[in-house]
Amino acid sequence: MNDLKILILGAGGRMGGANIRAIHATKGAVLSAAVERAGSPHLGKDAAQLAGLEPQGVLISDDLDAAIAESDAIIDFTAPQVSIDVAKRAKGKIHVVGTTGWTAEQDAEIEAQAGHLTLVKSGNMSLGVNLLAALVEKAARALPKSFDIEVLEMHHRMKVDAPSGTALLLGEAAAKGRDVDLAEQAVRTRDGITGEREEGTIGFATLRGGTVTGEHDVIFAGEKERIKLGHIAEDRSVFAQGAIHAALWAKDKPAGLYSMIDVLGLEE
Amino acid sequence: MNDLKILILGAGGRMGGANIRAIHATKGAVLSAAVERAGSPHLGKDAAQLAGLEPQGVLISDDLDAAIAESDAIIDFTAPQVSIDVAKRAKGKIHVVGTTGWTAEQDAEIEAQAGHLTLVKSGNMSLGVNLLAALVEKAARALPKSFDIEVLEMHHRMKVDAPSGTALLLGEAAAKGRDVDLAEQAVRTRDGITGEREEGTIGFATLRGGTVTGEHDVIFAGEKERIKLGHIAEDRSVFAQGAIHAALWAKDKPAGLYSMIDVLGLEE
Amino acid sequence: MNDLKILILGAGGRMGGANIRAIHATKGAVLSAAVERAGSPHLGKDAAQLAGLEPQGVLISDDLDAAIAESDAIIDFTAPQVSIDVAKRAKGKIHVVGTTGWTAEQDAEIEAQAGHLTLVKSGNMSLGVNLLAALVEKAARALPKSFDIEVLEMHHRMKVDAPSGTALLLGEAAAKGRDVDLAEQAVRTRDGITGEREEGTIGFATLRGGTVTGEHDVIFAGEKERIKLGHIAEDRSVFAQGAIHAALWAKDKPAGLYSMIDVLGLEE
Amino acid sequence: MNDLKILILGAGGRMGGANIRAIHATKGAVLSAAVERAGSPHLGKDAAQLAGLEPQGVLISDDLDAAIAESDAIIDFTAPQVSIDVAKRAKGKIHVVGTTGWTAEQDAEIEAQAGHLTLVKSGNMSLGVNLLAALVEKAARALPKSFDIEVLEMHHRMKVDAPSGTALLLGEAAAKGRDVDLAEQAVRTRDGITGEREEGTIGFATLRGGTVTGEHDVIFAGEKERIKLGHIAEDRSVFAQGAIHAALWAKDKPAGLYSMIDVLGLEE
Repeated sequence: MNDLKILILGAGGRMGGANIRAIHATKGAVLSAAVERAGSPHLGKDAAQLAGLEPQGVLISDDLDAAIAESDAIIDFTAPQVSIDVAKRAKGKIHVVGTTGWTAEQDAEIEAQAGHLTLVKSGNMSLGVNLLAALVEKAARALPKSFDIEVLEMHHRMKVDAPSGTALLLGEAAAKGRDVDLAEQAVRTRDGITGEREEGTIGFATLRGGTVTGEHDVIFAGEKERIKLGHIAEDRSVFAQGAIHAALWAKDKPAGLYSMIDVLGLEE
Repeated sequence: MNDLKILILGAGGRMGGANIRAIHATKGAVLSAAVERAGSPHLGKDAAQLAGLEPQGVLISDDLDAAIAESDAIIDFTAPQVSIDVAKRAKGKIHVVGTTGWTAEQDAEIEAQAGHLTLVKSGNMSLGVNLLAALVEKAARALPKSFDIEVLEMHHRMKVDAPSGTALLLGEAAAKGRDVDLAEQAVRTRDGITGEREEGTIGFATLRGGTVTGEHDVIFAGEKERIKLGHIAEDRSVFAQGAIHAALWAKDKPAGLYSMIDVLGLEE
Repeated sequence: MNDLKILILGAGGRMGGANIRAIHATKGAVLSAAVERAGSPHLGKDAAQLAGLEPQGVLISDDLDAAIAESDAIIDFTAPQVSIDVAKRAKGKIHVVGTTGWTAEQDAEIEAQAGHLTLVKSGNMSLGVNLLAALVEKAARALPKSFDIEVLEMHHRMKVDAPSGTALLLGEAAAKGRDVDLAEQAVRTRDGITGEREEGTIGFATLRGGTVTGEHDVIFAGEKERIKLGHIAEDRSVFAQGAIHAALWAKDKPAGLYSMIDVLGLEE
Repeated sequence: MNDLKILILGAGGRMGGANIRAIHATKGAVLSAAVERAGSPHLGKDAAQLAGLEPQGVLISDDLDAAIAESDAIIDFTAPQVSIDVAKRAKGKIHVVGTTGWTAEQDAEIEAQAGHLTLVKSGNMSLGVNLLAALVEKAARALPKSFDIEVLEMHHRMKVDAPSGTALLLGEAAAKGRDVDLAEQAVRTRDGITGEREEGTIGFATLRGGTVTGEHDVIFAGEKERIKLGHIAEDRSVFAQGAIHAALWAKDKPAGLYSMIDVLGLEE
């Protein structure tokens, strides 16, 4: 058999469980290993069973190097420092990274590893968000600068970073359409006496609450009209499916840095 | 001087007033004539004054042929039979038609006049809606057929036709992106025991109320995710500005049928 | 022990699975029986296992009377004729009915059974929707009649009836706030030349697509302002939890007809 | 005659113009004076004409005391320090204050003037928003604390303060429903690594762009369901109408501090 052997990081968490169920539902992919941090209460449990499936005999472990050795690909929705560490150890493997909350330095550090592994990295793994980003770029290019651009997102109460990786990805798409640098144009918060909105800036607003999987809107507000381009993720399975899809797509690709735009073939 | 001389139809109505104010605010355009139907209580009034501006000496008349003779261009948000009649009489002129509520026969009849005048006709005159239509077409082409397409619109309580011309324009864009015929795929109402939604159809839903100028959403609903592409018109001035812009654009164009996609240069 | 013994109808379907998982997560409730229609491919399977839990030894059967005899309460999201039949057979039991798509005759027929069982029936089992209905009633009472009322809903592509039971429940709340009869005021579809909106009517619009669990908006559209009151159900578990909660609430209640407003104590 | 004589502050601005047009459209109210700051380019102009009406002979002046002396009521959408100054000078008059962007100290200072004039002060003058606030309070009281509350607003690019006065008014309503102090529970911005959302807090998010008059949403996000209560103002006339309505309502009221809840009779 020739199934792609996949290691799931954070196997005891909600996103880990969604990944394990998505592997189970996908032809050509098989769960090869499941890792949690040292000290996790889930160590030693059957990973599939913990995800609500029948047991498959893959026990959750904290031995990352052994898990990498047994696998072709790693699916990783963890934290930036963890993802960087994994990328350094995973020479020759496929590494699909959906982690968010990166600093510019951390971003540079993981992308520097792309010479020795096949790295697919995106702020969002869904088909819908990546298509949305392409539409946002197109709209930002077509509309005059007098249209103000705002990015709104809502996520569940457990999310620890703001704005979301996806909001930043959409902001980047808008900035690219306008040929500007997002870091220079971003207005990440507003509070108190802010003064009038400055033309050309890209604003962000963040909502948190309940169990919202992830909702994003990009608003282009002009003179007496608005365009609103949005995405709703109904549950995590949409990201897990995208991640498995990315891992399978990467099977025969050379080492390098890839995005979901590459995986989905959405390039202009 | 060389200003474009513009005739406004329905000059006593709300859209007529918006058109007159937009001409006033636009360099290179001048109000040359203002027409209302025979029997209108507005006949004989100063058209600019009725629109809230200073009087300009252009009185509202019911003599359509005289008004056409004095003008280079006609801006027309009336009713299909009126627009057809105007097109037949306006040989050699520019005719900008924002009228909605067309049957297929009426559509064919007015478009048959395009050999002898410069006809710009669109279900919506705004930059935003026409860009939205281009994005909808692109999304419909990129997404698999398993994404269900729905078009939602809301307008004020005085609107007499449903779905709106703009909703149909957006439905056409979606159908074009999928290479299907909207007439065959459209589901215009749902009530009672409808059965499950049929794959490939394009649904419409209509809201009416208050003073809403016009709001549209196109929803692509897939497995656990949705993309929503929308437009909000805050007041009628956005359509009036688009119509004047179209008339000025048409100044040196040969006779023929044009759309706002042509005017705005949004062609792929 | 004294746990409430609950029979789940449609145990092999998506709503049935959600109910079984909700019983599993609720103290004081236990799965006593699981029924599917004769001929179902799920007959004989372990109901809990089919719902993604560990097996509990409750096998799916088509013997409704035996299942009722073993149970204190029945949770029923099926179809009107099935629900009527169950109510007739379930003397002395608790019957929680979330079925939608009722005709007026069917409604009368099941409610006529309320003398001999404890019947909790609602177009929607969630806390949120029932609170929303109370807010809609209050708003409809406070606002002048010049505010037009519209009810919008979206559900997944498998839903067979329109408008949804919840949309009708919200329309009833609006009608109650205005002291009018919904049947007389409802405008359930709009297509073609409809004429202007009639004051006092309550409009409905229906969207279908993808995997949307259920979203509803009630819009009050006035002169230059709108109030929009909405609810989003993120997954079916919210209805299942409400149904279990209703069954537990009904434990010591006399025979009669109850609504979720009663269960949730939302009465004014 | 017995018409209420009204002074408009900021008569040359957009909100001033909306107020003047609303007075013109309202029986029982008449424009008595129009004031702008010293140095305004509008001084000496006919206020009604500047607002797009026929001239009425009321010229824009910077002599505030004379203007107050000629008037029964003052309508004031300016800035906190201006409003405080006006309240101090307007003994015995009606003062309708729609100004936003108050500090706690400024709030206390103007409210201290209520002993000697009839002060109607609100973060929002529309019927819709004040009804919305009553619904938000009711929902906040009915829902368990596990529902997270978020307030979202969008305004045009010229607005200089954030969050809007209306957003704060809605946050106060939510806090009142929960018997908590908004100042202690408010989370006004989120950026970077914020950690998980804290239970019981009330979050704010601000969008700015284009010509948006004012849109607000209050979201109650619980376990797998959300309630969203929102308001859209389509143009400024809705606030101007509310302010005139408040001034007329205040005609025979004793000195004191009143809110739009009082004016609209929305008290529970």
